[in-house]
Amino acid sequence: MEKFGPVRVGLLGAGTVGGGTFEVLWRNQAEITRRAGRRIEIARIADLNTARAGEIAAGRAEVTDDAMSVVTDPGIDIVVELIGGYGIARKLVLAAIENGKHVVTANKALLAVHGNEIFEAASRKGVMVAFEAAVAGGIPIIKALREGLTANRIEWIAGIINGTTNFILSEMRDKGLAFDVVLAEAQRLGYAEADPTFDIEGIDAAHKATILAAIAFGIPVSFDKAYVEGITNLQAEDIRYAEQLGYRIKLLGITRRRMDNGKLRGIELRVHPTLIPAKRLLANVEGAMNAVLVKGDAVGHTLYYGKGAGAEPTGSAVVADLVDVARMLTSDPGNRVPHLAFQAEAVADLPILAIEEVETSYYLRLRVADEPGVLADITRILADAGISIDAALQREPDEGENQTDIILLTHRTIEKQAIAAIARIEALPTVLSKATRIRLEDLN
Amino acid sequence: MEKFGPVRVGLLGAGTVGGGTFEVLWRNQAEITRRAGRRIEIARIADLNTARAGEIAAGRAEVTDDAMSVVTDPGIDIVVELIGGYGIARKLVLAAIENGKHVVTANKALLAVHGNEIFEAASRKGVMVAFEAAVAGGIPIIKALREGLTANRIEWIAGIINGTTNFILSEMRDKGLAFDVVLAEAQRLGYAEADPTFDIEGIDAAHKATILAAIAFGIPVSFDKAYVEGITNLQAEDIRYAEQLGYRIKLLGITRRRMDNGKLRGIELRVHPTLIPAKRLLANVEGAMNAVLVKGDAVGHTLYYGKGAGAEPTGSAVVADLVDVARMLTSDPGNRVPHLAFQAEAVADLPILAIEEVETSYYLRLRVADEPGVLADITRILADAGISIDAALQREPDEGENQTDIILLTHRTIEKQAIAAIARIEALPTVLSKATRIRLEDLN
Repeated sequence: MEKFGPVRVGLLGAGTVGGGTFEVLWRNQAEITRRAGRRIEIARIADLNTARAGEIAAGRAEVTDDAMSVVTDPGIDIVVELIGGYGIARKLVLAAIENGKHVVTANKALLAVHGNEIFEAASRKGVMVAFEAAVAGGIPIIKALREGLTANRIEWIAGIINGTTNFILSEMRDKGLAFDVVLAEAQRLGYAEADPTFDIEGIDAAHKATILAAIAFGIPVSFDKAYVEGITNLQAEDIRYAEQLGYRIKLLGITRRRMDNGKLRGIELRVHPTLIPAKRLLANVEGAMNAVLVKGDAVGHTLYYGKGAGAEPTGSAVVADLVDVARMLTSDPGNRVPHLAFQAEAVADLPILAIEEVETSYYLRLRVADEPGVLADITRILADAGISIDAALQREPDEGENQTDIILLTHRTIEKQAIAAIARIEALPTVLSKATRIRLEDLN
Repeated sequence: MEKFGPVRVGLLGAGTVGGGTFEVLWRNQAEITRRAGRRIEIARIADLNTARAGEIAAGRAEVTDDAMSVVTDPGIDIVVELIGGYGIARKLVLAAIENGKHVVTANKALLAVHGNEIFEAASRKGVMVAFEAAVAGGIPIIKALREGLTANRIEWIAGIINGTTNFILSEMRDKGLAFDVVLAEAQRLGYAEADPTFDIEGIDAAHKATILAAIAFGIPVSFDKAYVEGITNLQAEDIRYAEQLGYRIKLLGITRRRMDNGKLRGIELRVHPTLIPAKRLLANVEGAMNAVLVKGDAVGHTLYYGKGAGAEPTGSAVVADLVDVARMLTSDPGNRVPHLAFQAEAVADLPILAIEEVETSYYLRLRVADEPGVLADITRILADAGISIDAALQREPDEGENQTDIILLTHRTIEKQAIAAIARIEALPTVLSKATRIRLEDLN
């Protein structure tokens, strides 16, 4: 099925995200190839710590401590930069571009500060610089803004785009604890780094908000003009008062097209703790999760939610960028993105299961005689069918009634087994009605 | 800035979505051109009801009752099919493809039933068939699955993908009303059609779930194998019992890669009322909104939320597809999607406003003497500064204390005005501390 040879990737930086990227690409190689139309292979991994790089490669890629040799390697098509920071990363990215490589990066700091220089160089050389992983980890928010919402005049964006601070704020609210106490806990659990400054002072969120502002409004990246306020001064009592008033406090990255009397005044770009109504979905994004709410003039509100950090969620975004580049590199523009996501010749005719073969949980409601042993009879039938019970609710009969409702929630089972067991239950003399049966999914 | 001439579009079907598409494209023409790199213009509108088409066109496009003349017109690059149904729409889409036109369609029924035939014809002719608008309206879920999550083995998808039924279920739960009563209300409000069968019997959701299954798992569309159960038999008491047990009932489209003992058994594809834990974000998607939850092996859970229907939200997706095609049609593949979403030469240097110029609302906490008139003094200062108050909370002083906290929520104002007013408030002799000030956004 592969009309084209593999795309060869050089990976710079063998840290957490580098490992996640390699692992995801390796594990899902077959499926990714079916989507991309050609194999994507990480041929070389560069890290000063070659032992660390070697652990990731495990003999499946060449390891080097010389990153510059990767970005100048004529055999490399795409350079993935996962080093971070503004120093060597900038030099390597610019060198990769000069050498005609496409670049994929997760480096929000680099793009927020030096993005204009980098994108200009890339346009000059006609190469792509893809950066889905730079904002909100695995959530495809860059793609949504650059491609999914192109019809819209974007009015504003408000995002929970730093998982560390969202974890801390969630814990402060849940447990009524002070900032310092929760920060120490977050560090112990690995949700906050030993030096948490970038996260808790809002700098990381501001890097990401800067990138979102640029692609939402068509302006250059300008991190130096962002207003940045972290969460270090937040008091537990303010979280409590906010709660009483129907609000929650989140660290938001906000950017907004500001109109004054119908005239465009400029762009707001700011990161700060923010009260938001508790009923909004965004207010209910808890723990280390990320979510971005976008208001467009045509589409209205859309929200994008998922894991904003971590090896595989971030690796998911890096690999998606690699697939984008690989698809673009094929000479088949009419079918750049295959209609059904997978290349036409790679579509698989997997069976669609009949509903009787489906696996799910159930809510069952039964009208029963109010007699001892009824529930025991029912649960025995379910147990005999291998169906275990997650919760049961038996109503007191109404005054003067000798009937009542029993409600059961089951664990997962195959539908035909549930149907057979329910038929036996309905045959019990103490069961006075057909069962009402509604499927249940935990979605976890 | 336009290196290429305009892309010429023929629009088939002058209904609600046709009007929304035309309006969005016209209103945001300048911004869309900055993103697409070339102008996208609806040159012709076809509808048997030419009066209706004429109202949309208003002299800005040619109107015809002969749709076939549009799909065979050598001057047309892209055909947008918004007629709906399987009959004439299928014939016109296939004719457009045979004539080498790219096709954009919002027609989920057509794709769920005849998609394999249509995509095969399109691949043969090397044209795109784009269908973002076919599932979940303005939410870019097709793009997320086909491009954003390509690194993942998709495990399952569960979506609220029919707004009518979600509105009905939300109302049944909120108001404890029976299905029939709420359906009549939904029809009166325009959330349900005069013949609501397609929605309430789950058929519309099953069309969409069929498309999602195909692009998630790389299988052909196979609507005939989907299990479809609507909401017409749902009892108000089951919604109530579910609530007591910590669940909500939603009509979900579910598709899942079913593994049995580590072996791929097949694909589940089903639409039915489903209990889901009340704490899940998906359970809190209310009214006519849509949301799709996707579980990928690398990215974990991601969720996409927004308006699933309506003229402009659906038009937003249609126009996004047009931009995709327009970008693909340019001969500049290295810059197919511009780095910063807008074409490099169209980036605008809008001012980023200083934080003092930002407009926002505030939470203010003040430590005050427990004396009469304190709140009046404070609110007068705010009123003089043109800052109105949304809510106030004054705590009873603790036993034996003669101080207390006042918390105020303000309406929107410019930050420098808030700062000046707060300075005056802090100068009051009855105000005993610096104000704690946290910004507040309603996000509405």
